[in-house]
Amino acid sequence: MPSYRAPVEDVLFLLNDVLGFHGRANLAGFSEASPDVVEAVLTEGAKLAETVLAPLNRVGDQEGCRRDPDGSVTTPKGFKAAYHTYAQGGWMGLSVPEEYGGQGLPLTLNTAIQEFASGANLALGMYPGLTQGAVAALLVHGSEEQKRTYVPKMVEGVWTGTMNLTEPHCGTDLGLLKTKAVPNGDGSYSLTGTKIFISAGEHDLAENIVHLVIARIEGAPAGTKGISLFVVPKFLVNPDGTVGARNGVSCGSLEHKMGIHGNSTCVMNYDGATGWLVGEANRGLNAMFVMMNEARLAVGVQGLGQSEVAYQNAVAYAKDRLQGRALTGAKAPEKAADPIIVHPDVRRTLMQIRAFNEAARGLMLWTALQSDIAHRSEDAKERQAADDYLGLMTPVVKGVLTDRGFANAVEAQQMFGGHGYIEEWGMSQFVRDARIAMIYEGANGIQAMDLIGRKLPKDGGRAMMTFLGEVQTFIKDHGEDAALKPFTGPLQAALNDLQGATMWFMQNAFSKPDNAGAGATDYMHLLGLVAMGYMWARIARAAVARKAEDAAQAERMEAKLVTGRFFAERMLPETALRLSRIKAGADTTMALPVEAF
Amino acid sequence: MPSYRAPVEDVLFLLNDVLGFHGRANLAGFSEASPDVVEAVLTEGAKLAETVLAPLNRVGDQEGCRRDPDGSVTTPKGFKAAYHTYAQGGWMGLSVPEEYGGQGLPLTLNTAIQEFASGANLALGMYPGLTQGAVAALLVHGSEEQKRTYVPKMVEGVWTGTMNLTEPHCGTDLGLLKTKAVPNGDGSYSLTGTKIFISAGEHDLAENIVHLVIARIEGAPAGTKGISLFVVPKFLVNPDGTVGARNGVSCGSLEHKMGIHGNSTCVMNYDGATGWLVGEANRGLNAMFVMMNEARLAVGVQGLGQSEVAYQNAVAYAKDRLQGRALTGAKAPEKAADPIIVHPDVRRTLMQIRAFNEAARGLMLWTALQSDIAHRSEDAKERQAADDYLGLMTPVVKGVLTDRGFANAVEAQQMFGGHGYIEEWGMSQFVRDARIAMIYEGANGIQAMDLIGRKLPKDGGRAMMTFLGEVQTFIKDHGEDAALKPFTGPLQAALNDLQGATMWFMQNAFSKPDNAGAGATDYMHLLGLVAMGYMWARIARAAVARKAEDAAQAERMEAKLVTGRFFAERMLPETALRLSRIKAGADTTMALPVEAF
Repeated sequence: MPSYRAPVEDVLFLLNDVLGFHGRANLAGFSEASPDVVEAVLTEGAKLAETVLAPLNRVGDQEGCRRDPDGSVTTPKGFKAAYHTYAQGGWMGLSVPEEYGGQGLPLTLNTAIQEFASGANLALGMYPGLTQGAVAALLVHGSEEQKRTYVPKMVEGVWTGTMNLTEPHCGTDLGLLKTKAVPNGDGSYSLTGTKIFISAGEHDLAENIVHLVIARIEGAPAGTKGISLFVVPKFLVNPDGTVGARNGVSCGSLEHKMGIHGNSTCVMNYDGATGWLVGEANRGLNAMFVMMNEARLAVGVQGLGQSEVAYQNAVAYAKDRLQGRALTGAKAPEKAADPIIVHPDVRRTLMQIRAFNEAARGLMLWTALQSDIAHRSEDAKERQAADDYLGLMTPVVKGVLTDRGFANAVEAQQMFGGHGYIEEWGMSQFVRDARIAMIYEGANGIQAMDLIGRKLPKDGGRAMMTFLGEVQTFIKDHGEDAALKPFTGPLQAALNDLQGATMWFMQNAFSKPDNAGAGATDYMHLLGLVAMGYMWARIARAAVARKAEDAAQAERMEAKLVTGRFFAERMLPETALRLSRIKAGADTTMALPVEAF
Repeated sequence: MPSYRAPVEDVLFLLNDVLGFHGRANLAGFSEASPDVVEAVLTEGAKLAETVLAPLNRVGDQEGCRRDPDGSVTTPKGFKAAYHTYAQGGWMGLSVPEEYGGQGLPLTLNTAIQEFASGANLALGMYPGLTQGAVAALLVHGSEEQKRTYVPKMVEGVWTGTMNLTEPHCGTDLGLLKTKAVPNGDGSYSLTGTKIFISAGEHDLAENIVHLVIARIEGAPAGTKGISLFVVPKFLVNPDGTVGARNGVSCGSLEHKMGIHGNSTCVMNYDGATGWLVGEANRGLNAMFVMMNEARLAVGVQGLGQSEVAYQNAVAYAKDRLQGRALTGAKAPEKAADPIIVHPDVRRTLMQIRAFNEAARGLMLWTALQSDIAHRSEDAKERQAADDYLGLMTPVVKGVLTDRGFANAVEAQQMFGGHGYIEEWGMSQFVRDARIAMIYEGANGIQAMDLIGRKLPKDGGRAMMTFLGEVQTFIKDHGEDAALKPFTGPLQAALNDLQGATMWFMQNAFSKPDNAGAGATDYMHLLGLVAMGYMWARIARAAVARKAEDAAQAERMEAKLVTGRFFAERMLPETALRLSRIKAGADTTMALPVEAF
């Protein structure tokens, strides 16, 4: 039976020592997030993840969801009670403004909790996760009445939320969508169409489900310029806020998926369902992007969560499983064999996952902090800089953390040999569950295109230039520090690769856009590596300082320094390979006629 | 519904144009394998794979195997009939000597057929595959009586075979095994113990199952020096060759696995089962290695097979699925959107899988040819050289083809977006099935250790020196050929990396064995890349020649040259990253105390 322990200590170290979280008291909600409060929130969140969510992970996988002939959906045993514990703990509204029932705490804190929930039970954690995404979209684009009607109930957890984008013939290319909205004359619309892959589309956890749906208003322009966003509750809401008549939306069937069996992935049928416009007509894609950006960060966090839990279980197995002897002589001569953690190839695998996890966690919290600054700072310049970073790093957090998160789950599974392939041990589930994160909220190839086609050139490349400058300044400021040399040296080489790749695109992608497309995924990973290398350099700086002043933490800090050196020596140099692929351009990639495939 | 088309044309091109298969008429069985015969065998094998095996792939996954209370196991609907078609076609004995009922054709040919079967239906293909492995072990180590008793029936397909190695506490480290063999006084032994993960351990396909089992004879030395190999039939065999009394071996339960559901993976209980020694007492590991080496090649082939079928289905989807427009302007303006194959990131993914598949197929057939030469040549020197190569490349074919085969299945699944995650489309199954190949017959980390600890230093590094020399000679011989420059140039760089890595181990691994262990997996992949780069150079040479003399093949040959250049530009340079990791040594990998994990 796999287990999960939330990395509370690591989050605290990152917030306190590395990211200067508590130096942000100027931001709304941050002064309330005092060190004591942060520690209490994380500790409670960890308890929830470890004792309520994690124990249901396997049962969710085995049992899955069931759709009854009347269209209702039953979630796995225990999910309902666990969801209520989650909701009643106030977790849904952790960073929602107090006026809508939330606690107004930083999103950064919420992001840390999301990692815990995703690591403990991805399928279950998705129900509140999607609700938070829907709340975010309503808060930004909804009318005051819509906010008052829906958000407090969703924050309370009495109602949940969904996002309805995909249709059978239309995933990435939302311009193709067919779901139609016809004005009813009273300000509401009648929606008709079919949506697929709708996570948490129907279930038994809440008394109402608030669907956010994109559709085309009759007569609207073709393509993405004619898309509007609607709110369509499962049950219409009475003027007093109670739940009224059933709306014309229902679950047509459940998908049979590779993983996340505990989450109900629905085909949703809209048969003249009543909906209300959210934001302006034909500006639905804009509103959707708010939801998607938040959701993309959350999905990146899921990748990390699965990587972490897979790592923890691989470590436990590697310490326990006796097989063979160390190359340097028996380490446990009293036993029939040594635990496999003595073998360098096992150790290499564990180090690789660990070195990723700690840097990815830093990157995740750093990016969430940018979101807080972008939304809460009173300084327009600071807001803009943070918003630049948030835009730049969102596709990286989504794409890189889920690509590597999945790969790490596979590597962790590998540690178990044949036992990893058997469902009883739970490693297969981590792999199967982690797989979805590379796909939903925009497949990772789309993230790469978003990065290179939208985020990179935006405002003349301002965000990337600022990032390159920040990393370069860090290296310059610490280049003479001998303790940091093992980090700043490789980081400089990686940064040069990133600069080289950026330059190459500037010179070669405008005239030939395929050069951008052919190098997009490599560029996303290149930026991710540099960002994680930068995180490691900052972690190392903090670890050196902490080690000097806090003897009790010396061993833990030393472990960080070793792990960071492993990253710098063995993982960061991948940037050179990524650069060489980018510079190969699109020629051989695009040369074959379609018939040759 | 996914489909499969066996790559007959490509195999023919590799055998005829690249590997000089028909120039080997001096080897036993090769003169019978005339061009006509080879083409007929491949065409028939393809038909079998496409029309008999492939259609059952999904039903096998959905239905899985069932164990009834009496211990009998029922395979999925249709498997029995398909297995009989397979057996009756004479496929089991394709390369088994004629005196035991086989056709005596080259193993190379059998290997091509194994790829077809693995691509069409991995779970079903494993039943005959394991039988072939057991036959190989009996032919090398069995007594004449054992060969006569078991092999013809297995070749005929009336009986199948298994390998019984793993026990609950003992996988890689076979020295720990506990299954006991007690002499009965009549030349037979009584075996008692539990074996796990036994593929095809019990089923309804054949009238008897011939288990090859390793066990420790009472009083034998501890560790691997006290292991003996036994043959234990499910039903004892009467003197006239008919099936007699039930033996004391039974299936205790079936494992619940991530994939290959159609294959019965059994816990096998030996309760005083009667068995007979195969080969010498306490030399069982030796005998097992014959079986394992053959099986390891076959597992590498499975990785390729899954990569190929996943690629084919991703191509079909990418041509069909309409989404977005090409960066260079609409390619299908008459449609609502372009097929996604126009997008560079999709194309890059497909090219990457394709460039691997074609080179891996070359490497697979080249290695199988070494096996034929090693076993069939009359020239001792030639035999030795081929055996050197076979030993060197077996862990590479197993480790690299399955690591990449799985990764490719994942990439192919990614092309489908959300549809890839839904079981209906079949891509999830390819991923789940391909996953096992990285694990069984020695997890890939073990392959890497076998390469670096055993195969590389053997005979003073003779095999590797010969290989480095062969590739260097090829580059020298063709270095002036302008058409081959795009291949030989990058190949030289990769070869230098391989030489550098080999040298580094010679200088740093003897004094500190952990340096070998920490770099083993990178070295295995480095050698794999060079071997595939070498295959591409040879394919390119043949394609250039063929293109010049055969206008009808010009387009196909040009596609090969483009694909090979893609490999040389984008995939082969990974050798530099592998080398840099190897040179990082074991320091940071091994520095942390176990408690720090």
